[in-house]
Amino acid sequence: MNFLNEVVGRFPDAISFAPGRPTEGDFEPEDLARHLLTYTTYLEKELGWSRDRVRTQLFQYGRTNGLIHELIARTVANDEGIHVPPEAIVVTTGCQEAMLLTLRALFARPEDTLLVSSPCYVGITGAARLLGIRVRPVPEGPAGPDPEAVLAAVRASRAAGERPRAFYTVPDFANPSGASMSLAARERLLEVATDEDLLVLEDDPYGFFVRTGPARPTLKALDRGRRVVHLGSFAKTALPGARVGYVIADQEVVGPAGGRSLLADELSKIKSMTTVNTSAVSQAVIGGLLIESDCRLREANARTIAHYRTNMDTLLDELERHFPARRRAELGISWNRPDGGFFLVVDVPFTADHLALELSARAFGVLWTPMSDFHLDGGGTRRLRLSCSSQSPQEITEGVARLAAFITAQLTATAA
Amino acid sequence: MNFLNEVVGRFPDAISFAPGRPTEGDFEPEDLARHLLTYTTYLEKELGWSRDRVRTQLFQYGRTNGLIHELIARTVANDEGIHVPPEAIVVTTGCQEAMLLTLRALFARPEDTLLVSSPCYVGITGAARLLGIRVRPVPEGPAGPDPEAVLAAVRASRAAGERPRAFYTVPDFANPSGASMSLAARERLLEVATDEDLLVLEDDPYGFFVRTGPARPTLKALDRGRRVVHLGSFAKTALPGARVGYVIADQEVVGPAGGRSLLADELSKIKSMTTVNTSAVSQAVIGGLLIESDCRLREANARTIAHYRTNMDTLLDELERHFPARRRAELGISWNRPDGGFFLVVDVPFTADHLALELSARAFGVLWTPMSDFHLDGGGTRRLRLSCSSQSPQEITEGVARLAAFITAQLTATAA
Repeated sequence: MNFLNEVVGRFPDAISFAPGRPTEGDFEPEDLARHLLTYTTYLEKELGWSRDRVRTQLFQYGRTNGLIHELIARTVANDEGIHVPPEAIVVTTGCQEAMLLTLRALFARPEDTLLVSSPCYVGITGAARLLGIRVRPVPEGPAGPDPEAVLAAVRASRAAGERPRAFYTVPDFANPSGASMSLAARERLLEVATDEDLLVLEDDPYGFFVRTGPARPTLKALDRGRRVVHLGSFAKTALPGARVGYVIADQEVVGPAGGRSLLADELSKIKSMTTVNTSAVSQAVIGGLLIESDCRLREANARTIAHYRTNMDTLLDELERHFPARRRAELGISWNRPDGGFFLVVDVPFTADHLALELSARAFGVLWTPMSDFHLDGGGTRRLRLSCSSQSPQEITEGVARLAAFITAQLTATAA
Repeated sequence: MNFLNEVVGRFPDAISFAPGRPTEGDFEPEDLARHLLTYTTYLEKELGWSRDRVRTQLFQYGRTNGLIHELIARTVANDEGIHVPPEAIVVTTGCQEAMLLTLRALFARPEDTLLVSSPCYVGITGAARLLGIRVRPVPEGPAGPDPEAVLAAVRASRAAGERPRAFYTVPDFANPSGASMSLAARERLLEVATDEDLLVLEDDPYGFFVRTGPARPTLKALDRGRRVVHLGSFAKTALPGARVGYVIADQEVVGPAGGRSLLADELSKIKSMTTVNTSAVSQAVIGGLLIESDCRLREANARTIAHYRTNMDTLLDELERHFPARRRAELGISWNRPDGGFFLVVDVPFTADHLALELSARAFGVLWTPMSDFHLDGGGTRRLRLSCSSQSPQEITEGVARLAAFITAQLTATAA
């Protein structure tokens, strides 16, 4: 992503569909002090803590697995119907650390293999690379991850002498594809996981942001056999700058001495070697924010959800306006219609690589992301990802006009 | 350390010389809001930032290497005489992440080997274990790490087919031994590093806390050949709960494509796979605190420095009172007299293991740490670490009385 950041930096006046930045909504810097006060007042008034204990909680090193696990447990119960004991939750320095800890805990042997959708979010493949973990891509279909493709990949992996340990997936409005799994696909994936002794690493940062249709249950909410490790994030639903995420890891594990513990406890041991604690200050801010929303973050996100819905609708409408059905069939371009989230993918009949992006930025003032950056198997060369999370509808309208000019010029150049 | 935490938890009424908890000093929860306001006011008034830019700085994902690198550069220049460009500083989620990033960046081949003092701080050996990095212990003498022992270890490492890449050390008031390197030893270590093409990873969390004698320059302040990667922490000098540390990595590295960059930039790439960003909220709190101290954290720590000095003096006086010279010679016990910091080591003529600790806690109401927990080579079985950082002098007095009773009982039991 360094090249991408560098291009974004060089063209500050371009309209950017490149990074998936959350909207800043109504956030004001003063909110942080209010959240902190909400949290400390909660500790003193609701939980009856002494002033000394509150001081120590904010100041000191603390519980490795985190301080706000009970508030998070209440929130995921309210918002997702996920019911787990707070002890099964590990608070992390953003979802990235959640991935790192989970991979390190689950992948011990050289033959242990992680299956991921391709195209795939670079955070998980980066964490796997950091730890030297083998990754096997599973091609994603237009309807998102396909359980039968996962099953085939598990078998191919075994046949190759690997031990397929887990499948990583973003079931809702995936980054980068925008695709979502149907309810039936979710249930089938859990069946496959049970049959094949596979864990599912579910990453669900965008699940709240439904554009159309009903919200679907998370895999963890459907999980009856503790097959799912749920990777959570407050970056899109609360405050990216706080860097607070979590893992729900209620799997029972047997230690070297034969004792039983939760996977969460194993993650805690690893966390003591990565960051020791998640910032108590950040946890207090997120804790205050959760308390202010009565641990109902989905309701608290009503305006944000509407923002993303409007933006994706606008993006789809503007693409339609510039490339109506007949014209786009003639030109050989198409795009998907995600049910929500930040991302949409456009297929084009020319190479959409870093060179094309550079041209798009310089000559047309519009930025996007080459999908080949997310493919593990050399695909995606004629696809581009558009993110519509942080713009105003007016910017999207202008951005699509510029993008249409870029695409048209590329087609002309290709034809010439 | 899990066993230790568990014992501490089971005996809440015991006086604990076990964990090296920083003193909470004058900290109040309300300070956090003040630090945040100081920081945002600085951005708006001093740097002339717009309200929008301040909002984005606190809310969004941001620069991977951190937001407060310039304030940190000013602070280490004032406090340590370390003069580096801000771009050479990476802000991390505590010093633990600083270690993790540094090790991952420097240790690429299976034969790459990290030299560490034994006994050694468990954070660095834990990070090395997490990454599968080979560690070779260098026995520490009573005067701290001995450059000639490092040189011998480098040669032995090479003879064994390893590639010794770096030596990790805490030059001031080490955890766990309390030992410090003389100025001459520091200079000689840098010579050895230059001659042997070795990097030095300097971890200096306790350097401010001088009990007696002058403050010694850090290795980084003496470093003329960019041999030293300096691992910094605000956990002891500011606020452990913020989890903000840093790496000073001004080494020039040559990338795969032949381009030159700073080691700091390589650390940034790795950080994008561990935590993406250090909490902007935490950085703002520490930033505010640095601004309030005019980037002179040593002066701001005057009361804290005095607290640790009084505590170590009290610990030494009380040990002396219970075991005057002649008596301790008879009994075969001794201890070192650290020039500062949190830790002191007592040598005893009996096994000071987890079983002895359990007895000490249950029957005598006093906790300490077995030194064998910090030895990589099976040593330290008859040594115990005392931490005197977070108690009051009265607690230390009472704690030493209990410890003396425990030691005396053990000696009687051993003699019987």
